[in-house]
Amino acid sequence: MQNENEILIKIALDTWCSRINQTNELISSLSDDQLNQEISPNRNRGIYVLGHLTAMHDNMLPLLGFGAPIFPSLKETFLVKADRTVADIPSAEELRQSWNNVNIQITKLFKQMSEETWFEKHTSVSDEDFITQPTRNKLSILISRTNHLSYHFGQLILLKEKEVHADA
Amino acid sequence: MQNENEILIKIALDTWCSRINQTNELISSLSDDQLNQEISPNRNRGIYVLGHLTAMHDNMLPLLGFGAPIFPSLKETFLVKADRTVADIPSAEELRQSWNNVNIQITKLFKQMSEETWFEKHTSVSDEDFITQPTRNKLSILISRTNHLSYHFGQLILLKEKEVHADA
Repeated sequence: MQNENEILIKIALDTWCSRINQTNELISSLSDDQLNQEISPNRNRGIYVLGHLTAMHDNMLPLLGFGAPIFPSLKETFLVKADRTVADIPSAEELRQSWNNVNIQITKLFKQMSEETWFEKHTSVSDEDFITQPTRNKLSILISRTNHLSYHFGQLILLKEKEVHADA
Repeated sequence: MQNENEILIKIALDTWCSRINQTNELISSLSDDQLNQEISPNRNRGIYVLGHLTAMHDNMLPLLGFGAPIFPSLKETFLVKADRTVADIPSAEELRQSWNNVNIQITKLFKQMSEETWFEKHTSVSDEDFITQPTRNKLSILISRTNHLSYHFGQLILLKEKEVHADA
């Protein structure tokens, strides 16, 4: 029997892993042409959403105290700038690889983290603020990034050929 | 200073409340005409997604041991059947009200739950399975439904007039 903290951390990690796996399956099932389509008329292209997610996940490395991002150049194109405002963006093939690399690396680090580490503050909150706002810990980053992934997963799935149900 | 379990439960509840509030703001900003549009060509209409979310949240009442759903008739139309396969669905106005009622009720119940209650099994797992799978507790339902809401929120936001950024 695990203790309650271990159970809670396992739920959060399982939810992350499950959504990453679903997204990987979806992205593998889409052609580069499909990824270059817009998720809905005049909205972001799939490739932009993929780059955006990759940059967000890469940025979790410094936020959780694991060091520098692996692909720092993605930040400007996919976190600062909007879609279609940067002339040269990485190819679908490159982004697929970066996406996988970042998630493999960060998920490996997650699984090595001790229970106590999840309760430590993340790097964008000060020591003073953390005393009065103890929810701003590393686990809160995991939970919010999982929801961020779910949000965009709900959009990327629209690139598939057909949908027959709200959750399809 | 709160204990670690309290901190974790607060993170999960804050994430739920924040996403519910964002969704409420979005839905209030959409006209009935916009809600009746498809989130993308040939996909679910906004009104179907709203009904689907309402039915899912209503179904959390029995799943968490709070009793019967408030609007049991929504289940067939929005969880079992696909969009445009049921002739008469509730109006946008009715669904807006049901959505608010369900969330107000369930969020009130959440806030009254003791720390220990969140670690109890939900009603769709057996006593035997819960011994070996202690993550199938009430908190896991809260976390998975929050991600489910994020998924569909990422779709409903496409009904807005214009999007300028991946997270807009």
